[in-house]
Amino acid sequence: MKVAFQGETGAYSEEAVFALSPDSTPIPCTTFEQVFIAVRDATVDCGVIPIENSLHGSVHENYDLLQEFSLVISGEVQLRIRHHLLGLPGSSPDEIRQIYSHPQALGQCRSFLRTHFPEAELVPSYDTAGAAKMIAERGRLDAAAIASVRAADEYRLIVHAESIESNHNNYTRFLWLSLPETTAVRAVPAGSAPRQTEQAEQPGTGTTSGVKTSIVYAQHENVPGSLFKSLAVFALRDIDLLKIESRPLVGSPGKYLFYLDLGGSIEDESVKNALRHLEEVAASVKVLGSYLSGRQIN
Amino acid sequence: MKVAFQGETGAYSEEAVFALSPDSTPIPCTTFEQVFIAVRDATVDCGVIPIENSLHGSVHENYDLLQEFSLVISGEVQLRIRHHLLGLPGSSPDEIRQIYSHPQALGQCRSFLRTHFPEAELVPSYDTAGAAKMIAERGRLDAAAIASVRAADEYRLIVHAESIESNHNNYTRFLWLSLPETTAVRAVPAGSAPRQTEQAEQPGTGTTSGVKTSIVYAQHENVPGSLFKSLAVFALRDIDLLKIESRPLVGSPGKYLFYLDLGGSIEDESVKNALRHLEEVAASVKVLGSYLSGRQIN
Repeated sequence: MKVAFQGETGAYSEEAVFALSPDSTPIPCTTFEQVFIAVRDATVDCGVIPIENSLHGSVHENYDLLQEFSLVISGEVQLRIRHHLLGLPGSSPDEIRQIYSHPQALGQCRSFLRTHFPEAELVPSYDTAGAAKMIAERGRLDAAAIASVRAADEYRLIVHAESIESNHNNYTRFLWLSLPETTAVRAVPAGSAPRQTEQAEQPGTGTTSGVKTSIVYAQHENVPGSLFKSLAVFALRDIDLLKIESRPLVGSPGKYLFYLDLGGSIEDESVKNALRHLEEVAASVKVLGSYLSGRQIN
Repeated sequence: MKVAFQGETGAYSEEAVFALSPDSTPIPCTTFEQVFIAVRDATVDCGVIPIENSLHGSVHENYDLLQEFSLVISGEVQLRIRHHLLGLPGSSPDEIRQIYSHPQALGQCRSFLRTHFPEAELVPSYDTAGAAKMIAERGRLDAAAIASVRAADEYRLIVHAESIESNHNNYTRFLWLSLPETTAVRAVPAGSAPRQTEQAEQPGTGTTSGVKTSIVYAQHENVPGSLFKSLAVFALRDIDLLKIESRPLVGSPGKYLFYLDLGGSIEDESVKNALRHLEEVAASVKVLGSYLSGRQIN
């Protein structure tokens, strides 16, 4: 199975591809849009995109692409982002003069770098895996990269230091994208298969346990209580809300998009009724997919 | 008035400083935390931080710092992020071989760069203003930077091309931070002064018009309807919600922090009552400040 992701080979998104489907062939893409295009045009079987990070928030660009393209979310995984200091085999930490990585990764490892490499020059790169690739290709014994353990494997680098990020609560949630005809059940990656046995009606709520549904909706106008009304459609049916985020529509003061994840499947009667009710009170509703709640990978 | 901001002189945050207070002296800081420390220790009068961007979402790091430090939000501004292509005086676009900027800015201008500079090497930098500074300091006639018009002024560069970003709906919301004893009214920046006259009770709702209040709260546990209950405290009092965002607490599955902006001041009787009610149903509530709704600067 070919799975598109954004970034270089060895990127954290590629780790997410293997976490979701260990036997797949990851296909690197330069942009998120290219991932969506590859799935839409069926040049790949699926795509994997980051949708939110515990430190850096939601990736609005991918929410926009989810609305623009008619793909469905068919799975998810929460991946802990571990930054490692990588160097050439035979290199020594004492000889490191330059450290390459994405500015965000350099920032997340600032306290480690200040303590252990106060003299090293920190050089920003496009991405973490690209920094590792450069060290390997140029045979730079005097430089190191901050990247994933997968990048170390891919570019045959050694790990000078592990998990050097200051905040270990750094998780990225990745989504698995498919064409709409691929059903959620078919697209559930092999790694998550055991969870399928957990799919059962939750007592009392009438929603399928272990499954969530992501939607985006817009409101007509920002009147007091309108958000409350739109959430009532779920509360009245005992449907759990797992994520809510308002996003102001630039150029339309007082208008918002809402991102919502709710407990249950689009196939559940109560979820169907709630969404029908939501359509009465919202300006637009788009269902992005129903899928098994993702494992957290540490 | 000395105002701390994160980044180099010429950064977009510095533009926000001048938008909020034209006569202030901006003090550059390396990290967001240093901005908070400078305000806390009163080595500056105020601080300015980005809190959300229309394309890239909320800056969780700054929400975390808002909870950690006992400062208050006393103003805001929405600034359109315009990227310009800058070069040395006397340089020509035909001679540009390398283009320096922050990876995010390079990404946002990808389509312009691909069309007009398909051969140029794109070189990532720590920040946009730092890229402009480098071009100026090294006298690079063969290179350009993507940065703000303020960076052009600061480093005496010329503008080869204006507003080259693909998506013009790129706005960052900046907050103005003060010590708690500085009242919201005192800290309201000069530029927004006319809005003060708009401060009046909204008919019917009993909240102060033009003023918003930001809070962060946590819930005891994720039971169906608990978010709905917490929002009811505002809906029951006709208080408008201007932003809502859930943030999962990593390591505590099912637990969330909520970021909420509501219409009205902490001094309003209805807001006071709503927050007292929220404390009954939430695990913790922290008020980040009441302040005038910010102007949008295009």
